[in-house]
Amino acid sequence: MSPDEFRAAGHAAVDWIADYLEGIEEHPVLCPLEPGAVRRRLPASPPEEGEPFDALLADLDRVIVPGLTHWQSPSFFGYFPSNTSPPAILGDLLCAGLGVQGMLWATSPACTELESLVMDWLVQALSLPDAFLTTSKGGGVIQDTASSAVLTALHVARERAGGARKLPRLMIYTSTQAHSSVAKGAKVAGFHPQQIRAIEVDDSLAMRPDALRVAMAVDAASGKLPCFVCATVGTTSTTALDPVPEIARATQEHGAWLHVDGAYAGSAAICPELRFVNAGLEHADSYCFNPHKWLLTNFDCTCFWVRDRAPLLEAMSILPEYLRNAATESGAVIDYRDWHVPLGRRFRALKLWAVMRCYGLSGMQAHVRRHVSLAQTFAGWLDGHERFERIGEVPLGLVCFRHVGGNESTEALRDHLNASGELYLTHTKVGDDLLLRMAIGGRLTEESHVRAAWDQMVAWSEANP
Amino acid sequence: MSPDEFRAAGHAAVDWIADYLEGIEEHPVLCPLEPGAVRRRLPASPPEEGEPFDALLADLDRVIVPGLTHWQSPSFFGYFPSNTSPPAILGDLLCAGLGVQGMLWATSPACTELESLVMDWLVQALSLPDAFLTTSKGGGVIQDTASSAVLTALHVARERAGGARKLPRLMIYTSTQAHSSVAKGAKVAGFHPQQIRAIEVDDSLAMRPDALRVAMAVDAASGKLPCFVCATVGTTSTTALDPVPEIARATQEHGAWLHVDGAYAGSAAICPELRFVNAGLEHADSYCFNPHKWLLTNFDCTCFWVRDRAPLLEAMSILPEYLRNAATESGAVIDYRDWHVPLGRRFRALKLWAVMRCYGLSGMQAHVRRHVSLAQTFAGWLDGHERFERIGEVPLGLVCFRHVGGNESTEALRDHLNASGELYLTHTKVGDDLLLRMAIGGRLTEESHVRAAWDQMVAWSEANP
Repeated sequence: MSPDEFRAAGHAAVDWIADYLEGIEEHPVLCPLEPGAVRRRLPASPPEEGEPFDALLADLDRVIVPGLTHWQSPSFFGYFPSNTSPPAILGDLLCAGLGVQGMLWATSPACTELESLVMDWLVQALSLPDAFLTTSKGGGVIQDTASSAVLTALHVARERAGGARKLPRLMIYTSTQAHSSVAKGAKVAGFHPQQIRAIEVDDSLAMRPDALRVAMAVDAASGKLPCFVCATVGTTSTTALDPVPEIARATQEHGAWLHVDGAYAGSAAICPELRFVNAGLEHADSYCFNPHKWLLTNFDCTCFWVRDRAPLLEAMSILPEYLRNAATESGAVIDYRDWHVPLGRRFRALKLWAVMRCYGLSGMQAHVRRHVSLAQTFAGWLDGHERFERIGEVPLGLVCFRHVGGNESTEALRDHLNASGELYLTHTKVGDDLLLRMAIGGRLTEESHVRAAWDQMVAWSEANP
Repeated sequence: MSPDEFRAAGHAAVDWIADYLEGIEEHPVLCPLEPGAVRRRLPASPPEEGEPFDALLADLDRVIVPGLTHWQSPSFFGYFPSNTSPPAILGDLLCAGLGVQGMLWATSPACTELESLVMDWLVQALSLPDAFLTTSKGGGVIQDTASSAVLTALHVARERAGGARKLPRLMIYTSTQAHSSVAKGAKVAGFHPQQIRAIEVDDSLAMRPDALRVAMAVDAASGKLPCFVCATVGTTSTTALDPVPEIARATQEHGAWLHVDGAYAGSAAICPELRFVNAGLEHADSYCFNPHKWLLTNFDCTCFWVRDRAPLLEAMSILPEYLRNAATESGAVIDYRDWHVPLGRRFRALKLWAVMRCYGLSGMQAHVRRHVSLAQTFAGWLDGHERFERIGEVPLGLVCFRHVGGNESTEALRDHLNASGELYLTHTKVGDDLLLRMAIGGRLTEESHVRAAWDQMVAWSEANP
């Protein structure tokens, strides 16, 4: 592909994306295909000779798009949102075009310095503790996912507590509602499943600090070493908010590491009135949230901070000869390879920079506020209808509810809605109850989309009394 | 940014990248700035109101580009190459634009099925073992880096060998020349540094299978459990090739897991005449190589295969209620979230698909052959010059050499070349000898660039007799 061909193909790709996003409501939100349907329509072997880029764009329309579930649809209400935005798409494009690799400061200083800068911008924008600033003792880094972030935190906590020698005695605490990544990360980090205590939750599904306290005391009394506590601000199931200040006090008594997972909810702190999600963060040893969920930045973009970077670097650094360089040895720079498992790294700060500059704080706030308001509106509709029962609080953009007919009705409603192609939502279970999760957070989601979803729910309930 | 504004900004970004790549030789290859120079030129706080995208492009020229080390420069000879290409850049753009998240087959079937397809295409294109096909018992997945791949392999090996309960007795073997990611991954996976044996190498810096055999026997005799062997095909330092067939035999005697790291060299197998890099792979339990190094695909793109996916899924799967779905429960689909640490995942297959289609096998072969040939040419120049000593073999695109004046001269030569801005190369150490590494593998690298680098080396050596 010559430079001129690249320009032409690139313009065509941009226009293709613009057309896709403008027409996104024409597609069924949830892909209706059977397993194997996509692959069956593509050649079983790679081509011997190159093909024009146009052929690829044609196959996107013919094969790929019909095989997608459309996460950017304004009627995608499943899981949590995974926002993209025009500035973030172009930031990712620029990252791909520059093709630099920022494993060390020296391998592209701008890649490291812009990342430190936007992470510090976020500390200001979200009103996070000053200790998280890269200009202080702590600092922030962009990782791929909250799963990798909790693994990183577990690794540092284990090493700080004595490492492999002490590992069999080390204990991990998180609530019964914590994300599966805590258990997965713990297993990857060498812990046995029995070294994880799933702490009970209260009626709001938030971790009970008294139960945490008891569990740690019992373990300590029997010679075990409380090592790591993961609190969740905005659980995946229902956006329950663990009481971080009380959890922090219990954690500190045992000298354990406190990680706070704000994967979804952390974005809310862009709005001053929603900064209850930051309560107690000044006591956290590490914290993460995902701009790729609710802050307009393409996946992957998880922001991970530590209050003190020394134990992180101590746990992660290995410096072979072929990576030695004067800047690293001067101690005056950040080498982000020591802040996570991967060595190589993309210039992910570009997309976050693009989002923060093109939206500004006011644009990001308006984005989050719209969803919180729509969630309240939707919750009000549920509360006013006798066939639906809203479950739990609605602090942010997620509304959980069930049909009064019970699990079977609720499941049938879900399947009906999703099969319609008009919207997509997913479920969870609380106790024995199946709940539907209406996660309102799409960049293109307006009240009309929430209203259309609601109208379908009501129509189904009237047809299935 | 409205759809029309997105089109205009997108075209401008594509043109900006085209201009950057066309003018890339105008910049010093290695960034000459001091720490802090980039950050100092940017605002300390994020903007309150949004700015136009043009302002960002202007700052790219003003602040970011001068702060880069230009990995895509044809005179970048450092580390290993990190190739991008026009089709890969556009594949990444399409990934960003679609914004789908392929954690489960159900969350976008095309994301999973295209990934399985291109991984199977690569099995054919590189002539890898049939057991690696996703249509067989094994299969492949795209991960971010070879560091994550080796951590994945270590985790599976540990679990297969008994998991956390047995961990204190488990042993890891790799050569003294292995990449630092093995030691880092082992530490993250909960191993103590003393559980890693660094096996001696022969004169070619390849692992000695006899030494491996002795180390495993001694450990087994003392009650330890050999668990994991990592062989490297194409070491980072000098592209030494561990003898995988002999290593596999020794590994099998102890029932240990064999991982083969072909991060750089694996791309060579696109050429039939270079498939010596595949020797013994049919015995590997897992294998990885990085198309983002030498196969024209933007970072991040590490291809990881297993011969049998059952132990991988056994080690990685955790299925919370909110991810349950009919397709997963049918067992008829691949859910790639169970193939690595992260839960969420980008549609990375698009860029690999774009590369394989737009270059075709013949285009990828020509790319690799050109570099291998240039490396031979450069090695010939070194061999014909009395002031330079070539060290080791040149099986692929890396040539190691030193100045006959010894370490001080070699270091001075390196610093002179890199300070010139005309080219960039990095070093390694073998024993006490400092060697320069000329890694020839850029998409835009032609003989003229290698010749210009050589002319500078000769000129320096004549000026510093």
